[in-house]
Amino acid sequence: MKSPHRVVIIGGGFAGLNCAKSLANDDRFEVTLIDRQNHHLFQPLLYQVATASLSAVEIARSLRAILGEAKNVSVILDKVTSLDDSNRKVITENGSYSYDSLVLATGARTSYFGKDEWAKHTHGLKNLEDSRRIRHQVLNALERAERSDDREERKRLMTVAIIGGGPTGVELAGAFSDLVQRALKSDYRRIDVHDFRIVLIQSGDRLLKHFANDHSQYTLERLQKLGVEVILGPRVDDVEEGYLHLNNGQEIEAETLIWAAGVAASSLTGCLDCPRDRGGRIEVEPSLAVPGHPHVFAAGDLVKLTDPDGMDVPGLAPAAMQMGKHVAKVLREDLRLQETRYADRYLTLRPAFRYRDKGIMAIIGKNAAVAQAKKLKLKGFPAWLAWLFIHLAFLVGFRNKLAVLLSWAFSYLFDKPAARVFSIAEDNDRGKEISLVSVTKR
Amino acid sequence: MKSPHRVVIIGGGFAGLNCAKSLANDDRFEVTLIDRQNHHLFQPLLYQVATASLSAVEIARSLRAILGEAKNVSVILDKVTSLDDSNRKVITENGSYSYDSLVLATGARTSYFGKDEWAKHTHGLKNLEDSRRIRHQVLNALERAERSDDREERKRLMTVAIIGGGPTGVELAGAFSDLVQRALKSDYRRIDVHDFRIVLIQSGDRLLKHFANDHSQYTLERLQKLGVEVILGPRVDDVEEGYLHLNNGQEIEAETLIWAAGVAASSLTGCLDCPRDRGGRIEVEPSLAVPGHPHVFAAGDLVKLTDPDGMDVPGLAPAAMQMGKHVAKVLREDLRLQETRYADRYLTLRPAFRYRDKGIMAIIGKNAAVAQAKKLKLKGFPAWLAWLFIHLAFLVGFRNKLAVLLSWAFSYLFDKPAARVFSIAEDNDRGKEISLVSVTKR
Repeated sequence: MKSPHRVVIIGGGFAGLNCAKSLANDDRFEVTLIDRQNHHLFQPLLYQVATASLSAVEIARSLRAILGEAKNVSVILDKVTSLDDSNRKVITENGSYSYDSLVLATGARTSYFGKDEWAKHTHGLKNLEDSRRIRHQVLNALERAERSDDREERKRLMTVAIIGGGPTGVELAGAFSDLVQRALKSDYRRIDVHDFRIVLIQSGDRLLKHFANDHSQYTLERLQKLGVEVILGPRVDDVEEGYLHLNNGQEIEAETLIWAAGVAASSLTGCLDCPRDRGGRIEVEPSLAVPGHPHVFAAGDLVKLTDPDGMDVPGLAPAAMQMGKHVAKVLREDLRLQETRYADRYLTLRPAFRYRDKGIMAIIGKNAAVAQAKKLKLKGFPAWLAWLFIHLAFLVGFRNKLAVLLSWAFSYLFDKPAARVFSIAEDNDRGKEISLVSVTKR
Repeated sequence: MKSPHRVVIIGGGFAGLNCAKSLANDDRFEVTLIDRQNHHLFQPLLYQVATASLSAVEIARSLRAILGEAKNVSVILDKVTSLDDSNRKVITENGSYSYDSLVLATGARTSYFGKDEWAKHTHGLKNLEDSRRIRHQVLNALERAERSDDREERKRLMTVAIIGGGPTGVELAGAFSDLVQRALKSDYRRIDVHDFRIVLIQSGDRLLKHFANDHSQYTLERLQKLGVEVILGPRVDDVEEGYLHLNNGQEIEAETLIWAAGVAASSLTGCLDCPRDRGGRIEVEPSLAVPGHPHVFAAGDLVKLTDPDGMDVPGLAPAAMQMGKHVAKVLREDLRLQETRYADRYLTLRPAFRYRDKGIMAIIGKNAAVAQAKKLKLKGFPAWLAWLFIHLAFLVGFRNKLAVLLSWAFSYLFDKPAARVFSIAEDNDRGKEISLVSVTKR
């Protein structure tokens, strides 16, 4: 019997997970999925963990739980440090893994456009730790404001500035406004939560620039109605701790700064000699193979591609899922062709990836969203319903769907988000991590 | 109009929260509840967060959410650093609070019986951070075992030793066994989860020493059936990283060491000149007032008291709740008596606290528990049902009850605990906390 074709997939996001699932229980393949986290994360709902509507566990699911029944798939928790394609090896912190085919699906990371020093003054939002930190930061700032006698200090503590007016920025601004104005309104004694200030900064002339013009306008109006200050036009010039300097001279003092302005491909793409765009994304072949590396594929947010229909493939969950499945299809097709008279030129016969556009959507707040798909354009309550329905439908795992549905129902009906909890490490915790941190403080 | 009586309550656990709730909306009192965390924690279910059955948010609720409607109660997130009873002031990290009456309800902390250096090699279980750390530790050790080629190393990584055979130790041992043998059994490819080893060490001659003898025996047999190694008799002599030395010469090598052997009163009790027992608990007057400090009360796990019926008040949630309510009753009684002809001796007329014994219970695993209340003794399935019902009934907040019920139903029906997720801070997270930790590593 022929030994199975070894596929290593790096990354358990939408692309990697869908590739693994497509190859599951196909005995011709032996699949190893490597991720630095033990869970698949439903990133489209990450902002709701940051804004205390959902708990981290509700939008994450153990990769082993998802793939446990697929006996030809192994899951490895490890961090990939480099790629050695000439020897077909992936090097990790704890070992190395040989492959016949490799799938890169490590996604995107927060990008500061070369100003990496801004990272330490702002919060990105790409993983569970990020979302917990933002929640902790904002709720804790309100607690500090409640303790403060100084009005100016209270105002500073109660200001959140969000840089970037794409879907993440808009969704965060809307959700923070909802949280504070609806859910927390009766909970403080000294501070008036209506003093909470949310500033959303977008360097372009409109929010949600990938959406139709009237959707951008609607989003602007809704956010303003929710009390969000939207600043259109200026760019961020400099970032300091608690300060933003805009290039129109404006300065914004805010205890919480959130960076939702840009992403770049995961740095692992730099390990391969291949064409990349400015954001580090790999300019793949139509089949999603990496140029010069016929046995390496890329899928998801680290791909730069215009498909045969002329569509620029976007950095969205549906595109990542489709790419993951497409790579699995190419791998199967490769095996099939190698059994035929086309065996010597199977590489040239690989099918091209075509993006099936499912549309785009963004939620603004309670009962308000925008959505567009082909000729269909929705806004307001119908778009909001569609947003809820689609996000529930794509969330991985029935258990998670039910838990999120329950959380949403409670928030909607009672204005009481469930996850207004953060925890502070305590001194008399003598655990290892704590002593590590306290060593630093000295 | 008379200005309200200022009550400061330190601690939002069962005792402090119940005291605050009893005084809520009584305009004669102005209540300030100070806690170092923003949430009330349902500690009896903390072990389920550690064993990945529940998420942290399900057993915690924001103190503001609980007390938001009580307009005479303020919640302050702060850490109390000292008490100045001669000036009736509580000093915190960020300020000070004046009181007419003070309620100490800061609970218990993990105690190492004078061997504080053992803390850095073992995990305690008193707050959410502790429980998250234990979950992270055990799941991560399984991941490391899955990566390892060395059989001895795998065995060491897959060993959890729990010191202390009281309810917490028993519940942790049972729940870890359930988790691994039922839920994770099909999830790994290299390791056999049946190699997972749980060692429970109890220095006495039986587990659950506060329970009836036959319950201890039943618990021992059930745990052994679940594959737990129970060591009765020897004491822990010394603790090193990954090693336990027992005083019978036995050595246990285990990646994960959990300390469930003892608690002592919160160190804040040391700020008052008053009689305390070896565990630091305050030997209160029958009314729960602190001797020598007639306007300071203690309630909950930091109290040492034999009530007028001769009952030693135990360190259990029901006792803490009753004490919290009793202190509120004494405070109201004080006010009432001061309006009568007994005003000059109201301090001597305070009602004594009487513990109403609701019984004790411990869960061992699926379908198995022990419970006893007065003459009623239950074990096995009926005790298990009673345990679930009572814990759900006392969990604070309808939202939490429903979420926990859902999680339990899923675990029971599908053997799939929801919370098998832990998150690892990533390098390209350039957040503040991370840079703090990475500085330490250099």
